[in-house]
Amino acid sequence: MNYKLLGKILGKIMILEGVLMVAPLIVSLIYKEFSTDTIVSYGIGGADIRYGGIRYILAFIIPIVALTSIGFLLQIPKPQRKSLYQKEGFALVALVWIVMALFGAIPFVINGDIPNYIDACFEITSGFTTTGASIIDDITAMSHSTLFWRSFSHWIGGMGILVFVLIFIPESKDGSAMHLLRAESPGPQVGKIVSKMRATARILYLIYLGLTVLEIAILMCAPIVDFSATDALGIDYRGERFFHALLTSFGSAGTGGFGFIPNSMEFFTPFAQYTISIFLLLFGCNFTLYYLILIGKIKDVLRSEELKTYIFMVIGAVAIVFVNLLTTLEKLDFASGEQSFRHALFQVASIITTTGFTTQNFDLWPMLSKSVLVILMFTGAMAGSTAGGIKTSRLVIAFKGLYINIRKLINPRYVPKAKFEGKSLEEKTTNDVFSFITLYFFIIIGVTFILSFDSSVGEGHGFFSNFSSALACISNIGPGFEAVGPYLSFSSYNWLSKIVLTFTMLIGRLEILPILILFSPRTWKKR
Amino acid sequence: MNYKLLGKILGKIMILEGVLMVAPLIVSLIYKEFSTDTIVSYGIGGADIRYGGIRYILAFIIPIVALTSIGFLLQIPKPQRKSLYQKEGFALVALVWIVMALFGAIPFVINGDIPNYIDACFEITSGFTTTGASIIDDITAMSHSTLFWRSFSHWIGGMGILVFVLIFIPESKDGSAMHLLRAESPGPQVGKIVSKMRATARILYLIYLGLTVLEIAILMCAPIVDFSATDALGIDYRGERFFHALLTSFGSAGTGGFGFIPNSMEFFTPFAQYTISIFLLLFGCNFTLYYLILIGKIKDVLRSEELKTYIFMVIGAVAIVFVNLLTTLEKLDFASGEQSFRHALFQVASIITTTGFTTQNFDLWPMLSKSVLVILMFTGAMAGSTAGGIKTSRLVIAFKGLYINIRKLINPRYVPKAKFEGKSLEEKTTNDVFSFITLYFFIIIGVTFILSFDSSVGEGHGFFSNFSSALACISNIGPGFEAVGPYLSFSSYNWLSKIVLTFTMLIGRLEILPILILFSPRTWKKR
Repeated sequence: MNYKLLGKILGKIMILEGVLMVAPLIVSLIYKEFSTDTIVSYGIGGADIRYGGIRYILAFIIPIVALTSIGFLLQIPKPQRKSLYQKEGFALVALVWIVMALFGAIPFVINGDIPNYIDACFEITSGFTTTGASIIDDITAMSHSTLFWRSFSHWIGGMGILVFVLIFIPESKDGSAMHLLRAESPGPQVGKIVSKMRATARILYLIYLGLTVLEIAILMCAPIVDFSATDALGIDYRGERFFHALLTSFGSAGTGGFGFIPNSMEFFTPFAQYTISIFLLLFGCNFTLYYLILIGKIKDVLRSEELKTYIFMVIGAVAIVFVNLLTTLEKLDFASGEQSFRHALFQVASIITTTGFTTQNFDLWPMLSKSVLVILMFTGAMAGSTAGGIKTSRLVIAFKGLYINIRKLINPRYVPKAKFEGKSLEEKTTNDVFSFITLYFFIIIGVTFILSFDSSVGEGHGFFSNFSSALACISNIGPGFEAVGPYLSFSSYNWLSKIVLTFTMLIGRLEILPILILFSPRTWKKR
Repeated sequence: MNYKLLGKILGKIMILEGVLMVAPLIVSLIYKEFSTDTIVSYGIGGADIRYGGIRYILAFIIPIVALTSIGFLLQIPKPQRKSLYQKEGFALVALVWIVMALFGAIPFVINGDIPNYIDACFEITSGFTTTGASIIDDITAMSHSTLFWRSFSHWIGGMGILVFVLIFIPESKDGSAMHLLRAESPGPQVGKIVSKMRATARILYLIYLGLTVLEIAILMCAPIVDFSATDALGIDYRGERFFHALLTSFGSAGTGGFGFIPNSMEFFTPFAQYTISIFLLLFGCNFTLYYLILIGKIKDVLRSEELKTYIFMVIGAVAIVFVNLLTTLEKLDFASGEQSFRHALFQVASIITTTGFTTQNFDLWPMLSKSVLVILMFTGAMAGSTAGGIKTSRLVIAFKGLYINIRKLINPRYVPKAKFEGKSLEEKTTNDVFSFITLYFFIIIGVTFILSFDSSVGEGHGFFSNFSSALACISNIGPGFEAVGPYLSFSSYNWLSKIVLTFTMLIGRLEILPILILFSPRTWKKR
């Protein structure tokens, strides 16, 4: 293990996180949270520590100081070898994400919005992994800086933290960088973008940034929140349009899903709901497709099998859910065809991209619609996007692989000539995909099993609640069904379940292997 | 396609089914069902056809005549090629099972016990595939001959119909026989038993028969049904001990699960419940292990990794469920530690062997116990047994394969030297297992999806009901959870769902591929 280089890269990322935390600090200052007169009391060592509005400032100042100072200290040792082995790459990626979460959780504890550190770690991991599962029961009690940091963490985590850093680390060898990219980027292959990696990564980040800015700009054109609905709740959201546009765009770009007003996006205007649906679907596309469009290779984009499959799945799912809602309107709390279409489109876009925003409590929808959503929770969107799940490309490869295996049984002399995205499909690729999917299901079953030990949850917490918790966390969706449905939170789980689900989110975001490798004793053995 | 040879073998099996149907006919005669004075009326073409007790005789006479005459007609054409290709083997096996079910369902319709033919096909497929899922809501309304034929079909299906026939077909080439055996025998490999296949198959059948007779004999030693409980229901089961011993043993040998008195085995005596538990676990073992014991190779048996894993799983599952029941006694309708242990043992044995007998409504058990049972529904027992599910050996291979894949990522130069049952584990084997497990999960998800189109089911029929229906059918278990829980039936599904579930049972029993191959257009193309 090249501990010194690992420490050096880790340190750089800690400094980066410190810098990024300045943003919520500014939000806190803008909203003058320091002038609040509520007081939080922590019972530490028998004595109470009482402090008022200053805690909102300290909440970010303390971790910023800690992150930057430790980060700079880690730069001091000079590594002898300037490259990383593959296993070191995987382990580092996992380590970085865990450290990011451990420090990222600190503000919530200090400002008292989420006093329990395990809850805070769950929440920020859910943020960085773009899951959107929350343990917060009353979102209206949260400060602006907390809401901002939660949603901002989606945006940071969406494209990957390490990839971002790699762009700015000139001395790191390309070989090492590739290992890191491979460990952090969702999808079965990195493919084309590897060759001129750094330049391409920079372009991908610009696309990400550009789309996010575009979404903010469009959302700013009209009211986002339907004030008549929120007024009825006794909350005045007027004057927060830019704040809401920002948080919505962070959440959709990273396909995260944290809400910031009650009932996720139920009280959003139809204009905002349609806009968000479209952007979610755009963020569910493989970013290299945008790159291809930018360099004028539109034919290549149109030929993409994964894109065709993705579009087919979206249209199919929207059609089924739309018709299903339309024919069971008497059981739902909305009545028009337009609403059926809008909610169907929004929910399919939100779930296939594993975002988790909701405009309706889909747990109350008819069975068929729920089934469609459960299936989309497995599939996820395209590889190379910010979405989680198994990914469309893996599904296409798996179905082709299964077809080949059956053809081989019908005729043992059959020579497969299947292709994927124009290249012939190697046996190793299909086998890796089968192995991945097997592990995916095993982890879901395993996590469901561990969750069933939790006796602190109530009666309503049935098998499907636990199963959908595991699925929602490994696929980085957020809400599940029943007791973890869209309008409920993960707060009723005990601390052990929360830790398990926190790791499940990390496993899902990093596509399983980095976390397993980090915790394998073999990784740390000298050789 | 060698249609003539296919027809010849199919015909032989039809004759065999006709012969086997003589048994329930005799049961009908013994119980003097012809003397019944109830009358069934079928509204056919506007007119009613009314007939009394004679229908119990006709119920079996008609299919016996049909089966044997068609069977003999199919013997007439002389096939030119006397061997089968692999794809023909697979297609034949699937075809045979479907034809068996189509004819096996006839008695239920004629004697009026299950007047709907689709329901009857569901029921007998559930019998032959040793699933035990039932559409009968009132078991006490069934005739003795119906009850016998249902349970007898478990025993017939348990060891495989074709394997049985193969023993007695001298002219068929060993190559063809192997294709058939491979298509019908559960488990990832046929392994050792292939070389002297016919002789070994005969021995396996003798072991099967021997264990069944042993179970009947032991059950005859004491009362099986607790008469005080059944008297309270107003039914007198005295004098039926042999009948019950027979049906219980058929059901446990085939790991089927059809009940024949109300509430499955809740009203059985503790003696019977313990006896059945032990025999279930025995029938869940790979039969070649008994063969090895018979020829004195006990060391080989003790070295079996699959056996060790199976025992470990059984002990682990019983321990967890036992402790879980013991600590939540206040919520259950039994109170003693002995009962907790007995029900835990029985239910684990019944579910891991994918039988589906129940002594308690486990759908009311605490979440942890239910989770354990759900996991066992996936795993199933050992390969080469009469059980369904993914099978222990595949799980062991999958975990070893996943371990190898992770090791390879940690160190790309790693050369795997994993072994399974003393032989080195080939990459092809693990890949086949991954592919199988992927397909298994895909089918469960797909069937759950199709079931969610069914709007004839009630409100209580949630996602977990449909999911557990799919799982219970593909793993050949029988009861699921919620709306298809142990004390409920599959009767509320509409005809389309029932047909889909019928095929799911066949797919599960024949381990997916034969059914897929039968319905692949490529199979039937001339080449």
